[in-house]
Amino acid sequence: MSTVDGFRALDDKSLVDYIKATPSLFSILGASDNFQIKEVGDGNLNFVYIVVSPYGSLVIKQALPYIRCIGESWPMTKERAYFEATTLKQHGRLCPAHVPEVYHFDRAMSLIGMRYLEPPHIILRKGLIAGVEYPLLSEHMAEYMSKTLFYTSLLYTTTTEHKRGVAEFCGNVELCQLTEQVVFSDPYKVSEYNRWTSPHLDYDAESVREDNDLKLEIAQLKSMFCERAQALIHGDLHTGSVMVTQDSTQVIDPEFAFYGPMGFDIGAFLGNLILAFFAQDGHATQENDRKAYKKWILVTLRETWSLFYNKFIALWDENKDGPGEAYLPHIYNNPDVRQLVQTKYIQDLFHDSLGFGSAKMIRRIVGVAHVEDFESITDAGKRADCERKALNFAKMLLKNRRKFVSIDEVILAIHEIDS
Amino acid sequence: MSTVDGFRALDDKSLVDYIKATPSLFSILGASDNFQIKEVGDGNLNFVYIVVSPYGSLVIKQALPYIRCIGESWPMTKERAYFEATTLKQHGRLCPAHVPEVYHFDRAMSLIGMRYLEPPHIILRKGLIAGVEYPLLSEHMAEYMSKTLFYTSLLYTTTTEHKRGVAEFCGNVELCQLTEQVVFSDPYKVSEYNRWTSPHLDYDAESVREDNDLKLEIAQLKSMFCERAQALIHGDLHTGSVMVTQDSTQVIDPEFAFYGPMGFDIGAFLGNLILAFFAQDGHATQENDRKAYKKWILVTLRETWSLFYNKFIALWDENKDGPGEAYLPHIYNNPDVRQLVQTKYIQDLFHDSLGFGSAKMIRRIVGVAHVEDFESITDAGKRADCERKALNFAKMLLKNRRKFVSIDEVILAIHEIDS
Ligand SMILES: Nc1ncnc2c1ncn2[C@@H]1O[C@H](COP(=O)(O)OP(=O)(O)O)[C@@H](O)[C@H]1O
Ligand SMILES: Nc1ncnc2c1ncn2[C@@H]1O[C@H](COP(=O)(O)OP(=O)(O)O)[C@@H](O)[C@H]1O
Ligand SMILES: [Mg+2]
Ligand SMILES: [Mg+2]
Ligand SMILES: [Mg+2]
Ligand SMILES: [Mg+2]
Ligand SMILES: [Mg+2]
Repeated sequence: MSTVDGFRALDDKSLVDYIKATPSLFSILGASDNFQIKEVGDGNLNFVYIVVSPYGSLVIKQALPYIRCIGESWPMTKERAYFEATTLKQHGRLCPAHVPEVYHFDRAMSLIGMRYLEPPHIILRKGLIAGVEYPLLSEHMAEYMSKTLFYTSLLYTTTTEHKRGVAEFCGNVELCQLTEQVVFSDPYKVSEYNRWTSPHLDYDAESVREDNDLKLEIAQLKSMFCERAQALIHGDLHTGSVMVTQDSTQVIDPEFAFYGPMGFDIGAFLGNLILAFFAQDGHATQENDRKAYKKWILVTLRETWSLFYNKFIALWDENKDGPGEAYLPHIYNNPDVRQLVQTKYIQDLFHDSLGFGSAKMIRRIVGVAHVEDFESITDAGKRADCERKALNFAKMLLKNRRKFVSIDEVILAIHEIDS
Repeated sequence: MSTVDGFRALDDKSLVDYIKATPSLFSILGASDNFQIKEVGDGNLNFVYIVVSPYGSLVIKQALPYIRCIGESWPMTKERAYFEATTLKQHGRLCPAHVPEVYHFDRAMSLIGMRYLEPPHIILRKGLIAGVEYPLLSEHMAEYMSKTLFYTSLLYTTTTEHKRGVAEFCGNVELCQLTEQVVFSDPYKVSEYNRWTSPHLDYDAESVREDNDLKLEIAQLKSMFCERAQALIHGDLHTGSVMVTQDSTQVIDPEFAFYGPMGFDIGAFLGNLILAFFAQDGHATQENDRKAYKKWILVTLRETWSLFYNKFIALWDENKDGPGEAYLPHIYNNPDVRQLVQTKYIQDLFHDSLGFGSAKMIRRIVGVAHVEDFESITDAGKRADCERKALNFAKMLLKNRRKFVSIDEVILAIHEIDS
């Protein structure tokens, strides 16, 4: 099917011709006709093909004008591929160690060619379900988040550059609206898309829809999501958007990117770690009670935040005389005032992250899109117990986040709900 | 002087030919050759011509590619006229009673033709200096601010419309940068542009530059100004941007418009009323001690905020089932939760307004652009006394704004500093 705007949805067969006709892709394969194609898209939205020849490999990702897991009944602009490619390139420049290289982008075709993250790379979420420790994960994620967020914020950019970026990414409005709906709205009202482990969580889901204090908090986070252009955020930084090995961490799938609040990315990652934590009891067996692994998740949670904190402040200090227009060196010109503003900045960011993290947890339990961490627990009663703990923790944190002054207090609160 | 982009700076003479060649303007004058032109620009940036024939009248405003009061050494995009015309039209649609009609806009010429606000219309600031009461001022300004801010925020617009507006007004970046510099930066550092009543306020100006707590607060307001696209704000809503008679209130000069925090507009207006209040002692004479007038200013201050509050909430209630995406009716579906979110929204807006209002006051005393309220006090010692009170009040309010829960408390604090 070809359309007037030059778009054709490819399949395993037509992709062969596309690659052969595209030097920037064909050359990666050593210009060899002898290549294999396999569609592996397990995500919700797009088609992903792995292409391997004896001489090289790559991944092709194509966006179709609808949401894959729902079908043509939920249309979604394929222009999202443009924002994904643009962000992969920009974040890749800022943090090449943790973002796959983009080889090719075809806007008309909504098609990205990028590095194939070869085995043993797997999706982090699957590793967390399997109980695999990744000793460098916190260091790498802190590196990725601190660099991409710091350098695309007004701490480093000029107002001119910032507003140019904001204007461009306003174009990714359909994806922002999808987030507004599935994260900030649907879980708090009756919606045909919502689902939960029923009947176990029927009362819990209803409670979310009738909790005025929760609705007050989620409204403020939604406004911040819609209004606050703090940095070029990934926009979908859950543990399914990270591929890992023991020594590599790669962030993929930034199709939801736009200039939004930093806490939305940090919270997505931390919140999904906490979901993984609460799912562990459902994965426990006689051979492996997962106790040690739960400890490792909490260490990773703490380290991710505290390494992020340190790296972010280090970037700020290094670039205090740089082009960023937020804190001019002639005003923030003594160590006291710099420490004062940095402490306040990080404190606010911490609270934003806890808020957005909680919102992301809630929506994965009573909203449309669930996570494999829980879905893979086949015993519904056991699953509901895990989900309820996560939900109760998230509700508590969303309402009380401003009272938390350190990540250790958050971990203490997790222990309390878990015991 | 004509340039390749079709721009020519007009003067009294060339403007005649321009008007004759422009039917949308010439017709307003009854197509009569017999018209008079007078340049009256008393503002800082642009050229303003009053054009009167026996059959009609209009005003022509032209932006030149620099700042008028400084000269060609401070270049400034003439595209600001485009954002001014666009905002006059949009705010004019939302609140026609308080915005002059736009007859004509020529983007290449950066030229706006609009309604002439005929005498006895005068600039509000001049009326405040003269001690004239305007009984409808608070009602009218509350009407203007509530309508323009409510209808251009996500309380009324869709995300799609909102992001389209945000993207477009990102183009007004040079004017935003000017505000960032003169409001949020220069007063807090040594700058060649800063001035103050010297030597009287030398110590006060230095204190502003060395007050770490003040720098912490101004940083947060600057970030909000740069990052938060809450509504299409006027951007320069001081008492010099309002023309009044006893029964008419007209808001002009929105060339600084962009999607920013609502509190920046509300604060600009309230802050400039407070400046007018503290200037009154400098205008007192034996015949008129200005005591009654000072009371009227404070009543106007209180009424403006409380009428704004009421009107804004009334618009929200009326439009609760409207297109706005911030508070969906299916979530905010009971009177309790609606009151909860409205109270919080207004409380935050109140604190933002107090913060921005304070920042606007401070910059008028120790920054580049001063206000006639103080400048017209010829006795430097007297002027400094008035300015110091205003400055001390603004510093206190900027630091403690979150402790104020009502406008009456603000007025009490004004009394305390004034006594
Ligand atoms: N560069 C890559 N290398 C290897 N596998 C990839 C790569 N990109 C995507 N994948 C695989 O495809 C899946 C879906 O990709 P993703 O970008 O998350 O698509 P979606 O937007 O549909 O969620 C991932 O979960 C991963 O298994
Ligand atoms: N529509 C109008 N009717 C009457 N006078 C006007 C009008 N617009 C501007 N003026 C006069 O011109 C002055 C400068 O206009 P303004 O729009 O504030 O320009 P600037 O952007 O240079 O500050 C105003 O203070 C007012 O005296
Ligand atoms: Mg994905
Ligand atoms: Mg995706
Ligand atoms: Mg003006
Ligand atoms: Mg009108
Ligand atoms: Mg102006």
